[in-house]
Amino acid sequence: MGAEARELICRFERDGAIHYGCMEGERIHTLAGDPFAGTARTGETVERSAVRLLAPVMPSKIIAVGLNYKSHVGERTPPSDPGLFAKFPNTVIGPGDPIPYPPDAEDLHAEGEMVVVIGKRARHLSHEEVDAHILGVTCGNDISERRWQASDLQWLRAKSCDGFAPLGPAIATGLDLGDLRLQTRVNGETVQDERTSMLIHSVADILVFATRYLTLEPGDVVFTGTPGTTRAIRPGDAVEIELEGVGVLANPVDMG
Amino acid sequence: MGAEARELICRFERDGAIHYGCMEGERIHTLAGDPFAGTARTGETVERSAVRLLAPVMPSKIIAVGLNYKSHVGERTPPSDPGLFAKFPNTVIGPGDPIPYPPDAEDLHAEGEMVVVIGKRARHLSHEEVDAHILGVTCGNDISERRWQASDLQWLRAKSCDGFAPLGPAIATGLDLGDLRLQTRVNGETVQDERTSMLIHSVADILVFATRYLTLEPGDVVFTGTPGTTRAIRPGDAVEIELEGVGVLANPVDMG
Repeated sequence: MGAEARELICRFERDGAIHYGCMEGERIHTLAGDPFAGTARTGETVERSAVRLLAPVMPSKIIAVGLNYKSHVGERTPPSDPGLFAKFPNTVIGPGDPIPYPPDAEDLHAEGEMVVVIGKRARHLSHEEVDAHILGVTCGNDISERRWQASDLQWLRAKSCDGFAPLGPAIATGLDLGDLRLQTRVNGETVQDERTSMLIHSVADILVFATRYLTLEPGDVVFTGTPGTTRAIRPGDAVEIELEGVGVLANPVDMG
Repeated sequence: MGAEARELICRFERDGAIHYGCMEGERIHTLAGDPFAGTARTGETVERSAVRLLAPVMPSKIIAVGLNYKSHVGERTPPSDPGLFAKFPNTVIGPGDPIPYPPDAEDLHAEGEMVVVIGKRARHLSHEEVDAHILGVTCGNDISERRWQASDLQWLRAKSCDGFAPLGPAIATGLDLGDLRLQTRVNGETVQDERTSMLIHSVADILVFATRYLTLEPGDVVFTGTPGTTRAIRPGDAVEIELEGVGVLANPVDMG
C-alpha cells in the first residue's frame, strides 16, 4: 500500500547532542556521519518517543515555487517558468515545534508542500542529472501571511518570519516523486488533499530552471508549491502535513 | 577629509589560508579571531597587493530594501514600511571578482549601496538598541536583471544569480551612517552620486522593522537601497562602488 521510502533519515537531539538517524517504525537507528557525505549505522537504537526530533536538514537556501498546482492557481495565469521565491534559514523549525504567530499578523495560512532536499552541489543541471543530485523529500509547511503577501513590495515578510518553515519529520529517500499523496489537516480536518502528479512544473523542471541561475548546495531545499485552497490558522490550532512515504509533520500554532 | 572609520576590517586569502585583517593604507595587520567574537592583532602585516581580498563577510541572510531613495523611486509611491526582499548567499563575491553575466540575461544593472553588517544576534530591536548590534558598513552592488525583475512572480532570479552581490573591500566601523557619500562608476563614469542622508527609511528604521519579524545573526547584511538612476552593464565593463569612509569596491563584468 502506498509509496515506501528506501530510508527515512531524521535528525534528533538526545542529551544535548545532535545526531542523524534512520527511522524504522517507532525506533531510530543512530547514524554516524551525515547524509551528504555518507552515513553508517552505529548499531545503537533509540525510541522515537525518547528523543526530540529536529528539522531533518538546516538549509543555507530555501527556494519555494509559487502557483505550481492548477487547483491553487484558480483563475490566475500560472507562470510559464517556475515562479521562484525565497525563504530565509530563520524560518526552519522541526516537528512539534510551535509555529510563532507574529503579534501583528492577521491572516496566517498553512501551506502543505513536498520539499526536495538537495544531496550534492548542483549547478546547470540537465534533466538527466537531476535525480542524482536529490537526497530525498520531506514535508514542509510554507507559512504565509496573506495580507503582507498582498501589500508588501515583495513576499519577504509574508514568508520569512521566524518559524515560518516547519520541516520533517524525516527525509525519505528512493521515492518516485511524481505521484505522492499530499495532505494538510487543521485540527484534524482535511484542508488540502492532492497528488504531486498535479504539479504544473515538475521537480526536474524546477531544478533545471533554478540551477541555470544559482548554485544549490547539499542540504538546500526546494518547496515545490501548495495545492488547492488554504485556510487561515489561529493560535492554538494544530497543523499536520502528510506526504505519502514520508510521514506526518505536526506543529501547533503558538498561543503567542 | 570626509568620514574616517575607526577600523577597516577585511578578509583575505594568503597561501590558501583565510584570515581577517585590519587595513591601514596599503598594509594589512593580520588579526587573530573573528570580528564577531573578538579580534587581536597578531603583530604580522602584509601588503594589500600581495593577498587576495575576499568578501569581508559571508552572510547567512542578505536582506535588501527596495525603493529607498527618493531619487530612485521617481514617480512611484515608496513603500510606507521598508520594502524588504531577499538575496541568497550564493550571490556574494569579493573585491575584484568578475560579475558573471548569465547567458540569457539581457538587461543587467549595477546598484551601488551602503551595506550594514550585523555584529550581534538581533531580534525585536528598539531604536536605542540598533547601534550596538551593527558591526559596521561596507560597499555592496545589488546586481539586478531588470527584465526578470519585471516579468517574474518575485525577484528571486533577478536578484540572486551566482555572483549578484559583490561586497567589500572592508567593513568600516565607527562611522556615522546618516550622511556618507555613495558613488557608482561604470568604466570611470559616475552613474550614481548621492548621500545616505537621502535614505527614505533610515538604517535604524530598517533594522527595527526587519527584526520585528526575523532574527538576524552576526554576519548577516542589509543592503539599504540604491539612489538615482541605474544603467545597464555589459560584459567587459568595470564597475566601482565607493562609500565614503569605506573605500572602493571594484569588479569587472565577466566576458562570459
